[in-house]
Amino acid sequence: MRRKGLASMAVEAVESRTSVPRATASFGPAVALSCRECGERFPLGPSFACVSCFGPLEVAYELPVGDPESLRRRIEAGPANIWRYAPLLPVPADVADRPNLNPGFTKLVKADNLARELGVTGGLYVKDDSGNPTHSFKDRVVAIAVEAARAFGFTTLSCSSTGNLAGAVGAAAARAGLRSCVFIPHDLEAGKVVMAAVYGGELVGIEGTYDDVNRFCSELIGDPLGEGWGFVNVNLRPYYGEGSKTLAYEICEQLGWRLPDQIVVPVASGSQLTKIDKGLKELVALGLVEDRPYRIFGAQAEGCAPVSRAFKDGHEVVRPVKPDTIAKSLAIGNPADGPYVLDIARRTSGAVEDVDDERIVEAIRLLARTEGIFAETAGGVTVGVTRKLLEDGRLDPSLTTVVLNTGDGLKTLDAVAAGPTATIPPSLSAFRTAGLAGL
Amino acid sequence: MRRKGLASMAVEAVESRTSVPRATASFGPAVALSCRECGERFPLGPSFACVSCFGPLEVAYELPVGDPESLRRRIEAGPANIWRYAPLLPVPADVADRPNLNPGFTKLVKADNLARELGVTGGLYVKDDSGNPTHSFKDRVVAIAVEAARAFGFTTLSCSSTGNLAGAVGAAAARAGLRSCVFIPHDLEAGKVVMAAVYGGELVGIEGTYDDVNRFCSELIGDPLGEGWGFVNVNLRPYYGEGSKTLAYEICEQLGWRLPDQIVVPVASGSQLTKIDKGLKELVALGLVEDRPYRIFGAQAEGCAPVSRAFKDGHEVVRPVKPDTIAKSLAIGNPADGPYVLDIARRTSGAVEDVDDERIVEAIRLLARTEGIFAETAGGVTVGVTRKLLEDGRLDPSLTTVVLNTGDGLKTLDAVAAGPTATIPPSLSAFRTAGLAGL
Ligand SMILES: [Zn+2]
Ligand SMILES: [Zn+2]
Repeated sequence: MRRKGLASMAVEAVESRTSVPRATASFGPAVALSCRECGERFPLGPSFACVSCFGPLEVAYELPVGDPESLRRRIEAGPANIWRYAPLLPVPADVADRPNLNPGFTKLVKADNLARELGVTGGLYVKDDSGNPTHSFKDRVVAIAVEAARAFGFTTLSCSSTGNLAGAVGAAAARAGLRSCVFIPHDLEAGKVVMAAVYGGELVGIEGTYDDVNRFCSELIGDPLGEGWGFVNVNLRPYYGEGSKTLAYEICEQLGWRLPDQIVVPVASGSQLTKIDKGLKELVALGLVEDRPYRIFGAQAEGCAPVSRAFKDGHEVVRPVKPDTIAKSLAIGNPADGPYVLDIARRTSGAVEDVDDERIVEAIRLLARTEGIFAETAGGVTVGVTRKLLEDGRLDPSLTTVVLNTGDGLKTLDAVAAGPTATIPPSLSAFRTAGLAGL
Repeated sequence: MRRKGLASMAVEAVESRTSVPRATASFGPAVALSCRECGERFPLGPSFACVSCFGPLEVAYELPVGDPESLRRRIEAGPANIWRYAPLLPVPADVADRPNLNPGFTKLVKADNLARELGVTGGLYVKDDSGNPTHSFKDRVVAIAVEAARAFGFTTLSCSSTGNLAGAVGAAAARAGLRSCVFIPHDLEAGKVVMAAVYGGELVGIEGTYDDVNRFCSELIGDPLGEGWGFVNVNLRPYYGEGSKTLAYEICEQLGWRLPDQIVVPVASGSQLTKIDKGLKELVALGLVEDRPYRIFGAQAEGCAPVSRAFKDGHEVVRPVKPDTIAKSLAIGNPADGPYVLDIARRTSGAVEDVDDERIVEAIRLLARTEGIFAETAGGVTVGVTRKLLEDGRLDPSLTTVVLNTGDGLKTLDAVAAGPTATIPPSLSAFRTAGLAGL
């Protein structure tokens, strides 16, 4: 894996080969796709793998150079959604005027009650992405994919999904005036099917497992049948992934243009964590935040912890696992960005850790009880891992710490068994007897 | 019922009796409770009914007089939640620094796709309150009740509920560091019980109907057992209700400090509609918006339409009904503010209308398909009524129209039966045969 210095990222596009076309207006400051393995550059297009080495492609930029103060003011004067960061994203300058769900700028909650319970004194924050339009961080990445789909003239937005992504794609396509066709395993729970189907796009149940669904989608992309189709996390993946950078931007802006000291991020494919790191580095390179060390911690569920395992074993390679956890939105057994996550956790003196299902549910309850935030199981994973890392001293309680909650508890109700304290007849004497009056 | 002119409300507190104490710091610009029937004034306290005539009490203010421009700037510089309007609410000036869920400033979505389908040319907007912390407008009213509970030294926040309110109270109390005790019918669906119980407060199932739960709560308030308890929609109701004013403030600010021409509001107890009218009138009185006519339309479900019935029959009195509709959050058969709603609809040349369950579900799908917004059944009611009023010409399509969506579709999944378009084996030939490829 090619490692890059902190400051090199923002300027690397300047050194780019002259054979790569300049950014079109559709992609703002983005100038090329570059291979994360061999560094080769390609024109901005609906491609996702390097023709030379099959490495994953990512978006490279010519980011705005000049006075950080004026860029900061420009951002602060922007809309209360991810488009305030349009100068740093692969989107056109007028993106905020197009029909889009406009996710982002979700609350960064100062979690003083939780901090007291966990013994954090340096400031504990929950970045609560359940406030997005379809209540998960997926709205961020899909929003960028929608703009890329428009730029490439795609008319159908597609994905395979078992959960959050299906709804995010259906909703975003509806609002953007694109058609959508989402592929799901045929035996998905009824509630999740409703969430995916209600936006009126095509929803196709595939008779098979989620792996079968993915294999089917790969075939479809290579076939004339899939012409004009943008699969958000396949042929639009380089653009899609950039949406996660906005989490880094928002956290720093909401901290008063300051890097967090420590940040705990869930790891599914690992893409989100790597893009958060990319976003933080960009802010440093642009002079929008002071250049100080930060530590990034990855959080997994014990029932699907291939990256955590590799981290603990000191490996550079991630061995795939068969997922078995209630944290279904993180249940990717063969995470594409696993090696990059290991690299970042080690480089920043962070870690990758996991918690079992019981601690995930405990953590969901802890966050709900202390801050009134009802998190999806993925939020239970990050809060649970935060607690574990504080207990064993790897998170420093005297430092500013940000924990991500990437989704909403309403979507994973089944994971939490919570019931009434008591059931009584409607009488004061029964209430007195139940012993609840002295609250 | 006492009718008031447009400009009198903001100044009426100035004329208030000298026997009423001045506002304490805890209640900001609020100076008294006043009876909506006889106008008698009482000190700010945990009371909800007039001792002279049993009429409902509401909060009266000495609102800031002076330069509207400086007030507008002060609001715009405030936080991105309801506390930006603290100068107009019964809360202390430093309210934004206290632990609270900080709801509000939700998206006002310009719904151009929906406008095209409905033939609206004057600008159609959806005020989407599903973006609140627990995904309904209840977070607004509970947030104000929390501050009143603090001011009165209450230590337990309580309510009776069958849905949204239980979660809103549980979450708000957790964040505010108050205890909570919520009463629900014992046979509530498991999903709703989880949403209410997860925040860790006491949750008591009452063996009986929702009416039994309410009767029990009334007894509890009058009993020493309930000492120190703030029931958000009973003894804190005057404060609680004021939270709905923020919907009016936000809509006008988000329209560029302009009144909407037409606004469609769901009617349960009717409180929300009356407070929106109050908020609009305050903005006019303060000079924050130009004084122009606006029309307010109430929306009910056919299965619980006592106010719509009274409006159509030309009555001033609302005859109670037994609710039978999928729009459970609007199913109040004996709406306390019904007469005020009739008054406002008639005074502003609006109307009160209802739609049946089938049209509610159609409207939920319409909004999801056009704008990517998945509304609760109450949102289906407002969109459905909007459609009906446009069809029969009572809503003017050439005017700026705002439709409220007060809650989230994830909370009423059962109401919508949506499924896959097709289910196929994982093969391209099956996909071709299904006829979906030509999207
Ligand atoms: Zn390569
Ligand atoms: Zn009275």
